[in-house]
Amino acid sequence: MPHVPDPLLLQLFAIFVWAKVFAEGFERLGLPAVLGEILAGVVLGPYATNLIQPTPTVYSIAEIGAIFLLFTVGLETSPKELIRVGRVSLRVALAGIVVPFVFGFVYIRFLRGHSAHEATFVAAAMVATSVGVTARVMGDLRVLGSRVAKIILGAAVFDDILGMILLAMVAGLASAAGVEWVQLIVLAVEAVGFAVFMIFFGPKLVKRIRPGVERMSTRNAPLILALALCLGLSVAAERIGMAAIIGAFFAGLAFAEYSPEWNLQPRVNAINEFLAPFFFFTMGTRLDLRAFTSGIILVSVVVTALAILAKVIGCGLPVLKEGWPSALKVGVGMTPRGEVALIVALIGLQMNMISQAVYAIVLFMTAATTLLAPPLLRYLFRRDLAKVPVPEEEAVVD
Amino acid sequence: MPHVPDPLLLQLFAIFVWAKVFAEGFERLGLPAVLGEILAGVVLGPYATNLIQPTPTVYSIAEIGAIFLLFTVGLETSPKELIRVGRVSLRVALAGIVVPFVFGFVYIRFLRGHSAHEATFVAAAMVATSVGVTARVMGDLRVLGSRVAKIILGAAVFDDILGMILLAMVAGLASAAGVEWVQLIVLAVEAVGFAVFMIFFGPKLVKRIRPGVERMSTRNAPLILALALCLGLSVAAERIGMAAIIGAFFAGLAFAEYSPEWNLQPRVNAINEFLAPFFFFTMGTRLDLRAFTSGIILVSVVVTALAILAKVIGCGLPVLKEGWPSALKVGVGMTPRGEVALIVALIGLQMNMISQAVYAIVLFMTAATTLLAPPLLRYLFRRDLAKVPVPEEEAVVD
Repeated sequence: MPHVPDPLLLQLFAIFVWAKVFAEGFERLGLPAVLGEILAGVVLGPYATNLIQPTPTVYSIAEIGAIFLLFTVGLETSPKELIRVGRVSLRVALAGIVVPFVFGFVYIRFLRGHSAHEATFVAAAMVATSVGVTARVMGDLRVLGSRVAKIILGAAVFDDILGMILLAMVAGLASAAGVEWVQLIVLAVEAVGFAVFMIFFGPKLVKRIRPGVERMSTRNAPLILALALCLGLSVAAERIGMAAIIGAFFAGLAFAEYSPEWNLQPRVNAINEFLAPFFFFTMGTRLDLRAFTSGIILVSVVVTALAILAKVIGCGLPVLKEGWPSALKVGVGMTPRGEVALIVALIGLQMNMISQAVYAIVLFMTAATTLLAPPLLRYLFRRDLAKVPVPEEEAVVD
Repeated sequence: MPHVPDPLLLQLFAIFVWAKVFAEGFERLGLPAVLGEILAGVVLGPYATNLIQPTPTVYSIAEIGAIFLLFTVGLETSPKELIRVGRVSLRVALAGIVVPFVFGFVYIRFLRGHSAHEATFVAAAMVATSVGVTARVMGDLRVLGSRVAKIILGAAVFDDILGMILLAMVAGLASAAGVEWVQLIVLAVEAVGFAVFMIFFGPKLVKRIRPGVERMSTRNAPLILALALCLGLSVAAERIGMAAIIGAFFAGLAFAEYSPEWNLQPRVNAINEFLAPFFFFTMGTRLDLRAFTSGIILVSVVVTALAILAKVIGCGLPVLKEGWPSALKVGVGMTPRGEVALIVALIGLQMNMISQAVYAIVLFMTAATTLLAPPLLRYLFRRDLAKVPVPEEEAVVD
């Protein structure tokens, strides 16, 4: 701890500062901060300048960062809201998952001839919408109060849950020797069961223990309990063959309803602010830019185009009866991929299920959809500007 | 991350839950939660039941926990307050450092015949008051508004800073081959210089960058900057031969004044709530209960008695002119030792400067002073109960 400088601390400092410097630069250019943090990892990591070679401990901290990232997403996903936003959003989410998965799988498996595993991972990564970017753009445009915005935000909530179920199945499936149907069914039942249990019984469980929690002598008892459940369900998810982050997500979901009352979100988010940069930075350090041969760039561009097209078709169709402009806005609003796509790619890489090239394709697709959505959205919303008043409390979705 | 259960996550979960179960139990018995977390480590750790053997990564996380612990202490130590509480508190703090150090050193070095290094570490551990317990008891008794309470809280602030300077010197000194006077002087100058710089220029520096920080595009920019400075000064402190936590403490100090405005304290504290249990638990796992031979228990009891006596004399004398009862209250209020004593012991153990036996003595002394102070304080304050009204905002010191 003293006199002998600890390389871990120096590395944490360097990664944190560089990630945030790149993030700030990206923000100033109007680009998503997350991409800046990943780029910092690409630039400083072993595959490029080799200035920072993250130690195993840093990768462990990055993994804990991913857990808190999804825990925060869960905390912001109110199960009550799900019931409120209704069927349109559910249909948007469902079609927005099926279409990209099919597009991705068919293209990678049959047109490019990759293995079924690689096709499954790419397809799964094409599924999950990261609505943060869209919410921010809509907030900037002051159209968060519009019906389109409500459908998008609602669908994103379902999308998160469905994406988690899919990820659970994919990760579980890939870890099996071959495609075993019995195992697939067991995993699907497990994943859906876990989701349904946490959505319906998680909040009730928290409600039931609430009087006890508030009688506890420990300071910040609700936060402590939420952190314990987050770690506990992460472990439990792993034990039944799913990814740890799925447990963390559902732990967040269970506490979502009590998050405002117990002031959980800003405090969990503080932990997140500290840990997430390590996750995104190490995402970047794993990307070998040399993987981008002209062939892979071509595939990446096609995958990106399919990822956008599939969301526009899948998410747009269920709202087509409300007119083309609305359908397009919903479709484009659902295109940005984010943390979940990155985590799917990371899991694939760690399990040796996907190659560096496929990892590069997913990162390209994630970055490109996130970068393209804001200008497209601004264009589509150009006529609605400042027409709809924005309720104050809705401006903080992000 | 998926399918193969990650032992790290399971270990983090088990440690977090056990630490908190013990903490809750201790709180309910009216004992300090921190001691419960340490006891959890002792009971479950390798020297006792051996149910949990923390991995190197867990020890690294515990170390980051120690850094955030001291960062929080710094954040709660307003430099402005120092100037307000005035000379009495400074004199109480100074005498309360010199007397215990001399008592501890003389007893361990000359009466017990231990090495100068061991005597220095024990003496340094006997120095730093952890005022949290005292503040809590005074809060419970509703005497936080009294003059005695103000003197104690003020002295604790100086005590923290002086303790950090002393720790910097001890850790630096111990790392030298022998006692070299030139090096001792260099270290003293460095430590005092670091302290003076951070007390006087730290807040000014933060004030100067403040407009820039508030113009930054990054979300939660003040928090990000505070975290970066915390990591940066920890690394810097190590580079100049001091302990990382000293840098973290002074980083907290620099931001203390802006902590309410930027809402830093509750958010950094959330990180702390997550990480600190790993620190205290691993403190416990390092304690070999077999070190407590009858001889060591005797020495521990004597050291504890000296630690109490020295603080009562050192801290009481400067306020003797205000009467015996006040002097006794201030003296007893300054007796509990806490995190800093534990960290001194840990550094000593990690540097192979102290034996398991001496580590056990320091942990015994820390636990005993923390356990004895509350009942003694309640007894001394028995006549003041509910006489002094407590201002609302002062009730949150802890």
